[in-house]
Amino acid sequence: MAGAWGRLVEFGVEVRSKVLAFAEKFWRMGADDPRKVIHGVKVGVALSLVSLFYYIRPINDKFGRNTMWAVMTVIVVFEYTVGGCLYKVINRGIATLSGGSLALAAHWMAAKSGPKAEPVILSALVFLFALAATFLRFMPTVKARFDYGITIFILTFSLVALSGSHVDDLTDLTVERISTVGIGIATTVSVCIFVCPVWSGQELHFLISRNLEKLAESLEGLVEDYFPINGDSMDRTEIASKRSHSYKCVLDSKSSEDSWASLARWEPPHGWFKFGHPWQQYSMVGVAMRHCAYCVETLHGCVNSETIKRPEFWEKHLRDVCMKLSSDSSKVLKELSSSVKTMKKSPSVNLLVLEMKNSVEELRISLSLLTEQLPFIQTRPAKSSELGNENSSFIDDRDVAVVLMPLTEAMALVTMTALLIEISTRIEG
Amino acid sequence: MAGAWGRLVEFGVEVRSKVLAFAEKFWRMGADDPRKVIHGVKVGVALSLVSLFYYIRPINDKFGRNTMWAVMTVIVVFEYTVGGCLYKVINRGIATLSGGSLALAAHWMAAKSGPKAEPVILSALVFLFALAATFLRFMPTVKARFDYGITIFILTFSLVALSGSHVDDLTDLTVERISTVGIGIATTVSVCIFVCPVWSGQELHFLISRNLEKLAESLEGLVEDYFPINGDSMDRTEIASKRSHSYKCVLDSKSSEDSWASLARWEPPHGWFKFGHPWQQYSMVGVAMRHCAYCVETLHGCVNSETIKRPEFWEKHLRDVCMKLSSDSSKVLKELSSSVKTMKKSPSVNLLVLEMKNSVEELRISLSLLTEQLPFIQTRPAKSSELGNENSSFIDDRDVAVVLMPLTEAMALVTMTALLIEISTRIEG
Repeated sequence: MAGAWGRLVEFGVEVRSKVLAFAEKFWRMGADDPRKVIHGVKVGVALSLVSLFYYIRPINDKFGRNTMWAVMTVIVVFEYTVGGCLYKVINRGIATLSGGSLALAAHWMAAKSGPKAEPVILSALVFLFALAATFLRFMPTVKARFDYGITIFILTFSLVALSGSHVDDLTDLTVERISTVGIGIATTVSVCIFVCPVWSGQELHFLISRNLEKLAESLEGLVEDYFPINGDSMDRTEIASKRSHSYKCVLDSKSSEDSWASLARWEPPHGWFKFGHPWQQYSMVGVAMRHCAYCVETLHGCVNSETIKRPEFWEKHLRDVCMKLSSDSSKVLKELSSSVKTMKKSPSVNLLVLEMKNSVEELRISLSLLTEQLPFIQTRPAKSSELGNENSSFIDDRDVAVVLMPLTEAMALVTMTALLIEISTRIEG
Repeated sequence: MAGAWGRLVEFGVEVRSKVLAFAEKFWRMGADDPRKVIHGVKVGVALSLVSLFYYIRPINDKFGRNTMWAVMTVIVVFEYTVGGCLYKVINRGIATLSGGSLALAAHWMAAKSGPKAEPVILSALVFLFALAATFLRFMPTVKARFDYGITIFILTFSLVALSGSHVDDLTDLTVERISTVGIGIATTVSVCIFVCPVWSGQELHFLISRNLEKLAESLEGLVEDYFPINGDSMDRTEIASKRSHSYKCVLDSKSSEDSWASLARWEPPHGWFKFGHPWQQYSMVGVAMRHCAYCVETLHGCVNSETIKRPEFWEKHLRDVCMKLSSDSSKVLKELSSSVKTMKKSPSVNLLVLEMKNSVEELRISLSLLTEQLPFIQTRPAKSSELGNENSSFIDDRDVAVVLMPLTEAMALVTMTALLIEISTRIEG
């Protein structure tokens, strides 16, 4: 008995700790990004506003049970960003109107053909429309813009076409339903836009500039990791290696970039962003950036692959040039990031790119000097033993590889930055 | 007048050609993947089946207007893959039941507090639940599994809680609605599973093994591109460069892999896939594969960055070793691909990996030989002019970089394949 009680207590304690952990996670998420909490409050407010219509007699008497469509609309249409909300609203609006009117036309046609043919015709039409709409959703261009609308279209069409066989005053019903949906849409859109709006265009904008900065940081951190300053405390290197990992979120940012870019198209002009802001350009910057991130990823793999002792001579020779190159490249990236952020063409970008190209040349020259001096280095350990010679040449090779990586990486970077510069000028233009 | 007529005809021709182009695209998509057309037919069949209920008198008399819930359920729940369909069905079922019963409880509670307090209490509850549910959807783990369920929960809760103030026989309504939703769900699930099912687990399975093969092909193609056989016709190199681009779809496969892996969890055991098939492992293979693809991408950039003339000596020296390494690596990848496809542990994988490691060693040895011979090569052009020397050493450097890339890439590949082997053994285990 005591054992069972003990187990029960244990179980209770465990459940309590799990609930507490979950609550803490919940709380932290809210504290990290209060906008998420605000979004929750906004949905609640919109729902409460719509539910008021249930309690106002005159409205309620007029629309009756159809009021539920207003509630439904709010829940289904309310999205985190304004772009997402407008995308759904516009899709839903057009789809409901076209689906409803097509269904009414189908009804009228079917009613003319007599009571026996009516259900057959209506079912066949529903079948055909469902087939075409479902198939259409597979097309990538259609899916990106009208996926939701097609679902609603076929939903409205089937509901109206099939329910019509029971309700006589079909047009009245349609008008009532459309007006309640209109109430829901109006409430949703006004709450979404006027209470602390989250613009997906803005999110995209900051995501891109933040990612550029992260890329710059991790490039710098990576090379600093590889050439640690002797006086470095453990703390600093740990910070550096943390920094060098920040490129990873750039690698996986494709899907969020794409979705934000496609939602941003639906948004009205706001703040800094005028009508016809070139959102597509952001995706292009994103592609170029991911290209850079792949290079950084490979570099990261090479640098961390083995912790072999490097010959000091090499390190001394190449350290400064590599450091300079990486800091130059990251300067360019940072400049581009701030130029994207402020949407102004930075005058110093071109200068910084030139400087970076110079450091690439410097690195090349010092490498070629190194290869000329190579025999002298190699003969030294060769004196100790045959095996040692082979080993050390292995190490040298790998080191050449590791050191040459920044070069090839920089080559790619130069191309990328050239591309980026063109794009950023286009953004501002 | 004639001008206007001409413009009209022109416009008509343009519209016709656009419509034809669209229709052709449509047709080609269907011909490429007939399963998409079949899916459309399936949705149509399910809708027609459900719409029959409208025309069967006894059922119709019993449920009346609630029949529309069956139609709605079919349209909203029907998904391309069985996993997607079951995910929605299970989420919808649980959410409807829990939301409905909670709303009934809230109703009973509110009714006890008197007619004045009732609307206030109900609105407050709707507000609170909406806030909590919306916020909960931001949690990544919750979003991946229950996103749809939470929407349906809050939808059902608000609808029942708010509509309850008008309908007296609330429990009757609830029961009716649940049974019509049940009809819709039963129709959808049976059509989805028994008529040409598309299993997302199977899709994931084939995607992974196809991607492994593509990676192998592009690795081979890339190195073949770099060392073209002299007797090559233009055709073959074009094929090779086409092959070398096939890694690109591996880079962007993350989102489809993730979604299929998360949907596959909802599927019952089918075909080769037993209950508790380790779907998570596939994602891990995907991550490792994308790691490889990043390397290939960087290699691709290096190989194609400049079309400089390479010193023949280098090419002759390294060609065979590089070719051997790349073909060995791609053999390993192909073997892994077929081992994933057949879900059998391949006995030759370990052998092939050993062979690949040997070629890595060979490449290293020939590189170290090369660096020893380097001074002899460099002194040769140095005789012509000082400038020539500098230039040629540049070329050499870049070439070292290009040639060393396979080495470093192979290092990463070795790590990756070791990982892959472990994973593939785990898959079969």
